[in-house]
Amino acid sequence: MIVEPGELLAAIDSPDDLKKLSEDQLVQVSQELRQFIIDSVSIYGGHFGASLGVVELTVALHYVFNTPYDQLVWDVGHQAYGHKILTGRRGQFPTNRRYGGMSGFPKRNESPYDAFGVGHSSTSIGAALGMAVASEYKNEQDRQHIAVIGDGAMTAGMAFEALNHAGVAKSNLLVILNDNCMSIDPNVGALKEYLTDITTSRTYNKVRDELWNVLGKLSKFGPNPQQIARKVEQAMKATLLKQSNLFEALNFRYFGPVDGHDVQHLTTILRDLKSIPGPKILHCVTVKGKGYALAEKDQTLWHAPGLFDKITGEIHKKSYDKPQPLKYQDVFGYTIVELAEQNAKVMGVTPAMPSGCSLNIMMKAMPDRAFDVGIAEQHAVTFSAGLATQGLVPFCNIYSSFMQRAYDQVVHDVALQNLNVVFCLDRAGFAGADGPTHHGCYDIAYMRCVPNMVVSAPMNEQELRNLMYTAQQPDMGPFSIRYPRGEGVMPEWRTPFKKITVGTGRVVREGQGVAILSFGHIGNYAMKATVALAAEGISAGHYDMRFAKPLDEEMLTDVLSRYQAIVTVEDGCLQGGFGAAVLEFIADHGYSVPVKRLGIPDRVVEHGTQDELYKECGFDAAGIASAVRELSGKVAAKATFQSLSV
Amino acid sequence: MIVEPGELLAAIDSPDDLKKLSEDQLVQVSQELRQFIIDSVSIYGGHFGASLGVVELTVALHYVFNTPYDQLVWDVGHQAYGHKILTGRRGQFPTNRRYGGMSGFPKRNESPYDAFGVGHSSTSIGAALGMAVASEYKNEQDRQHIAVIGDGAMTAGMAFEALNHAGVAKSNLLVILNDNCMSIDPNVGALKEYLTDITTSRTYNKVRDELWNVLGKLSKFGPNPQQIARKVEQAMKATLLKQSNLFEALNFRYFGPVDGHDVQHLTTILRDLKSIPGPKILHCVTVKGKGYALAEKDQTLWHAPGLFDKITGEIHKKSYDKPQPLKYQDVFGYTIVELAEQNAKVMGVTPAMPSGCSLNIMMKAMPDRAFDVGIAEQHAVTFSAGLATQGLVPFCNIYSSFMQRAYDQVVHDVALQNLNVVFCLDRAGFAGADGPTHHGCYDIAYMRCVPNMVVSAPMNEQELRNLMYTAQQPDMGPFSIRYPRGEGVMPEWRTPFKKITVGTGRVVREGQGVAILSFGHIGNYAMKATVALAAEGISAGHYDMRFAKPLDEEMLTDVLSRYQAIVTVEDGCLQGGFGAAVLEFIADHGYSVPVKRLGIPDRVVEHGTQDELYKECGFDAAGIASAVRELSGKVAAKATFQSLSV
Repeated sequence: MIVEPGELLAAIDSPDDLKKLSEDQLVQVSQELRQFIIDSVSIYGGHFGASLGVVELTVALHYVFNTPYDQLVWDVGHQAYGHKILTGRRGQFPTNRRYGGMSGFPKRNESPYDAFGVGHSSTSIGAALGMAVASEYKNEQDRQHIAVIGDGAMTAGMAFEALNHAGVAKSNLLVILNDNCMSIDPNVGALKEYLTDITTSRTYNKVRDELWNVLGKLSKFGPNPQQIARKVEQAMKATLLKQSNLFEALNFRYFGPVDGHDVQHLTTILRDLKSIPGPKILHCVTVKGKGYALAEKDQTLWHAPGLFDKITGEIHKKSYDKPQPLKYQDVFGYTIVELAEQNAKVMGVTPAMPSGCSLNIMMKAMPDRAFDVGIAEQHAVTFSAGLATQGLVPFCNIYSSFMQRAYDQVVHDVALQNLNVVFCLDRAGFAGADGPTHHGCYDIAYMRCVPNMVVSAPMNEQELRNLMYTAQQPDMGPFSIRYPRGEGVMPEWRTPFKKITVGTGRVVREGQGVAILSFGHIGNYAMKATVALAAEGISAGHYDMRFAKPLDEEMLTDVLSRYQAIVTVEDGCLQGGFGAAVLEFIADHGYSVPVKRLGIPDRVVEHGTQDELYKECGFDAAGIASAVRELSGKVAAKATFQSLSV
Repeated sequence: MIVEPGELLAAIDSPDDLKKLSEDQLVQVSQELRQFIIDSVSIYGGHFGASLGVVELTVALHYVFNTPYDQLVWDVGHQAYGHKILTGRRGQFPTNRRYGGMSGFPKRNESPYDAFGVGHSSTSIGAALGMAVASEYKNEQDRQHIAVIGDGAMTAGMAFEALNHAGVAKSNLLVILNDNCMSIDPNVGALKEYLTDITTSRTYNKVRDELWNVLGKLSKFGPNPQQIARKVEQAMKATLLKQSNLFEALNFRYFGPVDGHDVQHLTTILRDLKSIPGPKILHCVTVKGKGYALAEKDQTLWHAPGLFDKITGEIHKKSYDKPQPLKYQDVFGYTIVELAEQNAKVMGVTPAMPSGCSLNIMMKAMPDRAFDVGIAEQHAVTFSAGLATQGLVPFCNIYSSFMQRAYDQVVHDVALQNLNVVFCLDRAGFAGADGPTHHGCYDIAYMRCVPNMVVSAPMNEQELRNLMYTAQQPDMGPFSIRYPRGEGVMPEWRTPFKKITVGTGRVVREGQGVAILSFGHIGNYAMKATVALAAEGISAGHYDMRFAKPLDEEMLTDVLSRYQAIVTVEDGCLQGGFGAAVLEFIADHGYSVPVKRLGIPDRVVEHGTQDELYKECGFDAAGIASAVRELSGKVAAKATFQSLSV
């Protein structure tokens, strides 16, 4: 199916073409752009609501600014579809987020118009400031630098750090605050309330009006009170304009709030702002999902709805004859509620991912025990540490790749103090279509080196439940549980809880010659591999190690005494990961055995389905089988050689 | 030498004793506390200026609040000496920061009065909020939670994240902003300017005064204009009090600024604040180093001056007959200036550590090319990434343990985009007296798993210079260089620059039997070990690998072909570190050789001198020699066995 662009849009292959349009045509081209996004996402999938919300802003920005010389940084990048369409990538949407195709996020090596690669939130102001300072250094006075950031992303600390620097840096920086009151879920926190407040009240104007009104009443009493009133106003204005606004307090010139869907007004304002030097912020009020009624109404659902019928709004779901496994995130979501019902100490914490990690189930069931702290991973972890000092057991759920943002807090606030915080690392391993910014490749390595930290991964839903059950037992200390994006493998997932002894694995299959040691869900692929191998007469052993730290030393000792070669498998980076832990054990205990490690290689792996990426990196079932086969051959050859020698 | 406390202080072994004093005595006890700190630090060393600045605050807090039931979290903890003295640890100051002695920071396992372990900045608000939310959940309505945070620490994003959450959490939280305009170096950024502004202007009062003044002039013209003025004022007050202040904008009730050295006034205010529920902030203006004239004057020097004569103010320095090696940080500081003189692309970035990392040398010499961005590691890295997109080569200097705070930015903003940012990780390895929060244990592991990242460490100053020189060559990509706290080994450090081929090591000593592979400065200890071993007739080889990634595969192949056993040595964690990299190479290439890895074990190692800690962990020269000796014995035994067999 091909999506046909509207008449004006069809002629736009770059912002230069857009600039040929008259201002009067901007409304129409915006409509066409919006329609193209609706048409494309309904057929090809992808992120939806965010791009609809910035259609007019996108058109106005490329109309007014001289991109790519002027540098435009989209925060997160969910909202950059319009930008991609206007910058020569309209024809690539059928490949959006597909293996080998266009990235769902701006990416420097995809287009010169993508000034900065994004995916994680709140990087835009700092990156654009770096560009602006570089321009200043190079005497490119005419160059503009624009960061477009949502009100949700503005809650993350690094955005504030960048504002704090930019406010004294005097460089040419325009921050556009795309205020739609949403992250993926509704935005939370004091800043959001503040923004709502200024959007609805407009402090300065309100105070001024009040003053004029009252002073006006005095006019009959004396000579020229309006003149005096003007004097009062001037005195106030200097102070108020500077102080009455959070951004002005940080030395930004603040403009707005303005209607982010009035493309012609935006064009005028942006043109004016071009001539104002220094740091400035334009507060645009937009509606996420604008122009698609259902998306405006349920903004979380329509953040990334999957494929849908654009006319009826029906979201396509596969139908099945029999019960299907839940997503791991839902198993987490239901299980934490069960645990919390049994244990009054259990609490839930998420940084702005209630629907993404399914903590929304607990937030609904037990609102006083589950917290969305905003896009603020650092705070989520230290807040959890604070809870843990009081004897509570917080489950702090953060995607593996986002946990990178709270690494110091994990080390410094939780691990060094040996506090019982449970880290549930959703989206661990390859995240699929979101690509490298979202792949959770590094957590095994970066968690394993942290003292006191338990590093675990369930092979299936039952194991996830049992690890969660185990993690909230008394005195467990820092405990991490990683699990992948997507569905599990057990239609009947609600199994009874069973405590697991920390540092113990499970025998999945006894064998001989080669043993597979797997860590986490990828063990299911190893299981498939052993079945295939058995059919060939290769009887590989398979052990679901469950813990990368502490390792099951007894099991390893047993395995090393009975097998001649080892294959390790993990959905994580090879450097310093689970396989490396096995090598460390082997070296420390003086064993000598061939080990083939399978996992994510030391390079940037792009987007694709998880299965495509496992295959690419050689740890899908076929890859695992192949590694075992090769080692089996060597083991057999060696055995033959030895028996001949004897 | 024993430090004698003053008369009142001598009777205080806990806050209960303090509470027995009359309010009139608080001034005297503050003076005695200040004197005790001056006396102790001058003799025993430690952090100085920060604790002097909060003497009155410390007394007032413990006088008014019911610690430890009320929970007091000191941010960073440099300023907590007075707190330690008042909470039963006065007698432990002779052991402060010494091996086996009292920690220089608050620590949960040291005292119940230390509600939260600290060391890194800006954790206090989030941690105290976690405690406050826990109290709310447990219906401990009367419990107070206090975070004391400096204006420097307030610039870090996680403080803002916590404010954003606290503003809507309604829990019992008091944030005390200890505003002294300083981090270790002078505080920077827009927030600092804002705080100075409100301290000197007091917006609301100013506007109100102006209004009353002008309206007062109107009074002769009509009936009761003061009444009208009052009405205007009320209308303004509601809006202004809410909006005129950055903290009020975030839903905190703001009080102040107040004089942080008026202990009786502080006592009154804190008592009043106890009865006000919800999140509130008290803005205290203090002077870092208060009461010691020299420390007030040069606050950076007197942050942690070392031992000094309290009468003359002379800071004790060792004197030497001949030139001594510089600190590594100074070699960095002078070298970046040399490089910047040769290469217009070189820039410098530090998050609030100009004097700590010696970037102050470049900031003075080239102010437009060196940036202190405040306590904001995340921003420092993403800002550097922004600079790098424009073809500049930023050297972003962050202590190893602080780099944990910017891990996501390293991965997401630099490495995935393969940008040429040079990370100089100062204080890598054991940091010494600062202890576990400051030890740079994990960077080899957490950097090694990041794609595109070069992981290097110089063995001496010449190598540091050459690595820096190499890192700013064209197209180097992300490049990390780790080096330790303290002095190097070369009195003549200013050697000519030489480019190093990335991924190549150096032969330090050829040998036989056992080869030592060292990474970084710890190679100097390995060198000593080989000398001692040679005297015993053990001729160990020694290779300074320089790169943990990429490894020098050619050198490794050669070593593995000629030696029978390997010892790896690193001043970093064993899990996933340099030694693990060697094991991975060995496994991947099918070698079979005994490897003994020396480095930091998988537990929290406390404070002490670096040499004490190397010894404790078995990788000082004696420990290295011992490991080699043991392996040599095995190698020899095996060789004997084999020759007997043949």
